[in-house]
Amino acid sequence: MLNQAGITEKLAHNIVATRWDDIPPQVQHQAKRSLINFFAVTLAGCRSRPIEIALGLLGQFSGGRQASVIGRGERLDAPSTAFINAACANVDDFCDTHVATVIHPTAPVAAALLAFAEWRRASGADLLLALVLGNEVQARIGLAISPSHYNRGWHITSTCGVFGAAAGSGKLASLSARQMVWALGLAATQSAGLCECLGTPAKSVSVGNAARNGLWSALLAERGFDGPAEPLAGVQGFYHALAEKPDLSRVVDGWGESWEIISTSYKPYPCGFVIHPVLDCVLDWRRENPDAEVTRVVVRGNPLLSIRADRPNISTGREAQVSVQHAVAAALVFGKAGLDQFTDSCVRDGNVLKLRSKVEVLRDESLSTIAAAVEVTTADGRTHKLTQTAARGSDVNPLSDRNLEDKLRAAAAGWNPGHDVTPLIDAIWTIDESSDVSGLASLTVPG
Amino acid sequence: MLNQAGITEKLAHNIVATRWDDIPPQVQHQAKRSLINFFAVTLAGCRSRPIEIALGLLGQFSGGRQASVIGRGERLDAPSTAFINAACANVDDFCDTHVATVIHPTAPVAAALLAFAEWRRASGADLLLALVLGNEVQARIGLAISPSHYNRGWHITSTCGVFGAAAGSGKLASLSARQMVWALGLAATQSAGLCECLGTPAKSVSVGNAARNGLWSALLAERGFDGPAEPLAGVQGFYHALAEKPDLSRVVDGWGESWEIISTSYKPYPCGFVIHPVLDCVLDWRRENPDAEVTRVVVRGNPLLSIRADRPNISTGREAQVSVQHAVAAALVFGKAGLDQFTDSCVRDGNVLKLRSKVEVLRDESLSTIAAAVEVTTADGRTHKLTQTAARGSDVNPLSDRNLEDKLRAAAAGWNPGHDVTPLIDAIWTIDESSDVSGLASLTVPG
Repeated sequence: MLNQAGITEKLAHNIVATRWDDIPPQVQHQAKRSLINFFAVTLAGCRSRPIEIALGLLGQFSGGRQASVIGRGERLDAPSTAFINAACANVDDFCDTHVATVIHPTAPVAAALLAFAEWRRASGADLLLALVLGNEVQARIGLAISPSHYNRGWHITSTCGVFGAAAGSGKLASLSARQMVWALGLAATQSAGLCECLGTPAKSVSVGNAARNGLWSALLAERGFDGPAEPLAGVQGFYHALAEKPDLSRVVDGWGESWEIISTSYKPYPCGFVIHPVLDCVLDWRRENPDAEVTRVVVRGNPLLSIRADRPNISTGREAQVSVQHAVAAALVFGKAGLDQFTDSCVRDGNVLKLRSKVEVLRDESLSTIAAAVEVTTADGRTHKLTQTAARGSDVNPLSDRNLEDKLRAAAAGWNPGHDVTPLIDAIWTIDESSDVSGLASLTVPG
Repeated sequence: MLNQAGITEKLAHNIVATRWDDIPPQVQHQAKRSLINFFAVTLAGCRSRPIEIALGLLGQFSGGRQASVIGRGERLDAPSTAFINAACANVDDFCDTHVATVIHPTAPVAAALLAFAEWRRASGADLLLALVLGNEVQARIGLAISPSHYNRGWHITSTCGVFGAAAGSGKLASLSARQMVWALGLAATQSAGLCECLGTPAKSVSVGNAARNGLWSALLAERGFDGPAEPLAGVQGFYHALAEKPDLSRVVDGWGESWEIISTSYKPYPCGFVIHPVLDCVLDWRRENPDAEVTRVVVRGNPLLSIRADRPNISTGREAQVSVQHAVAAALVFGKAGLDQFTDSCVRDGNVLKLRSKVEVLRDESLSTIAAAVEVTTADGRTHKLTQTAARGSDVNPLSDRNLEDKLRAAAAGWNPGHDVTPLIDAIWTIDESSDVSGLASLTVPG
């Protein structure tokens, strides 16, 4: 049984002691997959309106042109770049998920690390190691308080993400264990973010802060800016203030025996995860039946599908992300469910609107959240029964490497249609061979 | 009875609707006193080591030279300036206190407002109005959850300060009520800070963030960056996550009938408030008995004095701030209890060390936290009984305007001994007549 008073120190020691050679090959590969997915979702979100507003302001404040905003031309100081890239990654609800905590792990960590690596230089192996460790730290800190912390209203991606960004940045900065404790303490006192903001641009501020403030914590600690000895389990520390009955064993026990990044899931569609098995059914059927006229769709899903996504009447792209009616209609009309199917204009499309009214949602307790059963009735009077038991992208039915590449290509084409991202994709798959990854973000933009 | 669902909107309306003419003269004057005190404590802290580290980093990131670091030559972008000046104000535990909540109200609010006003220009009346409102908002949000929120480990100056900075900055930016709701929501999702960090430099990060992020919230909201409708009382909002059983009536009831800034107390000595009545006794006695040789001191105080400040053995200036033994000894040796009496070198002073061992602390339940009874025994065998019923600087025995001026002059002399701050003091007392206060911070430095 661990002495709780030393939990932060023990965690810091683990972070500092872990080396690239300690990371199994499949974990190394998963880190590359997370990076591919990170660039995809960041490219998808990089010109959203909240991003334009925040970037317009940061441009007035920022001086050092240390790092690049992904998918765009601007260069900002490293912390501001971390903020913007993390916000871009998460703004469309398209980023990856650590299912056991509902943390979207890569947005805050990779944004901080890429900004650091572009500014201060780092090798690909060091970057990947820091990414694995940052993901691990935030997942473990979150596992100790899941699901009560999230249920209380804490946006766990933000509140735990700041620890991941601090740990990863601190690893890249080669902090000592003592400095790492300070970095984690500085992260703890900046841990913030409320679920009340989900569905509004305000969400992006706490996600951006997680990356920015995690990086900032590591940089301060590197220079000797100290903090408390036990910020996590101290009597007035993180767990006391933000959690009920934390299971502190989850923070450090079994370190290195398995890695949380392995259970990351990646979304094939930019919408609520509960809609995904439904889209799998509908898209597969449409591929086989491209011309069939649909007269009715009955969707059966886990009760969570109804609770979160039974929204027959919507008016914006943002709402579309949580409307199963819209998702099904758009998928049938266009034969796909990409970023273009969750825009304001797609919501107003006449054919989509017509079909949307023909989609019904039913609760079925027997189905898991990654399963669905769909009945499509066509104009010839036939009814087609479709089922999905494990949604594509869920950890039991993961996207292939090729799927992830395609996701990145599709996202990149949205803003820079003529730009070839093959060099970016190649650079990520071989990143552990690179001695300097500072040019990575520049591969996301033409010229 | 208020509908809880509209509490943020009601608060926003109050902020937007309140005008300078609505503020009674004594409240206007108290706002000036808070500004005098703010400049004093910021000047005192502006070259502390944590400040040097943070400023060294921010200098690498910052571009726009929009505002001035108080007491120093540097100019930074407005949010970074807000961060640094708030951190300076609070770093020495010398700043003002709203006793009912234990919020140090002016550090986060004034730092944000002065940075905004220097960058975007503002009149003195607008600045004071924003200061009164920022103080009011953070005090009211804190009153609804005091003392449980602070007791749980939340550093309430930070967690509520971000709302004060957002409200005040939003007032200076002339936000609409709708935008003010967004600003408060953006503040809510950035509310952070742990008491575990008290006594370490990490404390300054959450205080600095409160100013920076409050300003940032208002600037985002001004540009249409929106947030949730009910960030305070929403089911996944601020109060649900950070508090137990909030008394929401405290947030808006009786708005404008009285002003919380009136009950601000200002510290005459840069050390823990519980030590203050003891210092009052000792300093008064020493003034009358400059040459008497002290052989023993017995201090009686509220139990909190023992709990917080019974520290006979210390080694640093930071610890000295919470050691009644050191404070009494230094006050007897030097006849004063200013910044110079709470330094590392004063802690090592031979005469202070000798006297420190002769100070004894006793608990007396009958004494309030602002009262003390002291017995000083001298070499001639006489015992002198001294008492203080209400410490100087407490709200029932406030510092005079002249005391506050002297505090500012003494703090300014620490770093820039030759610099005359009379123009600064004059400018603050007449600030409501000024149409542009952007030059205020420049009066804190020579040339």
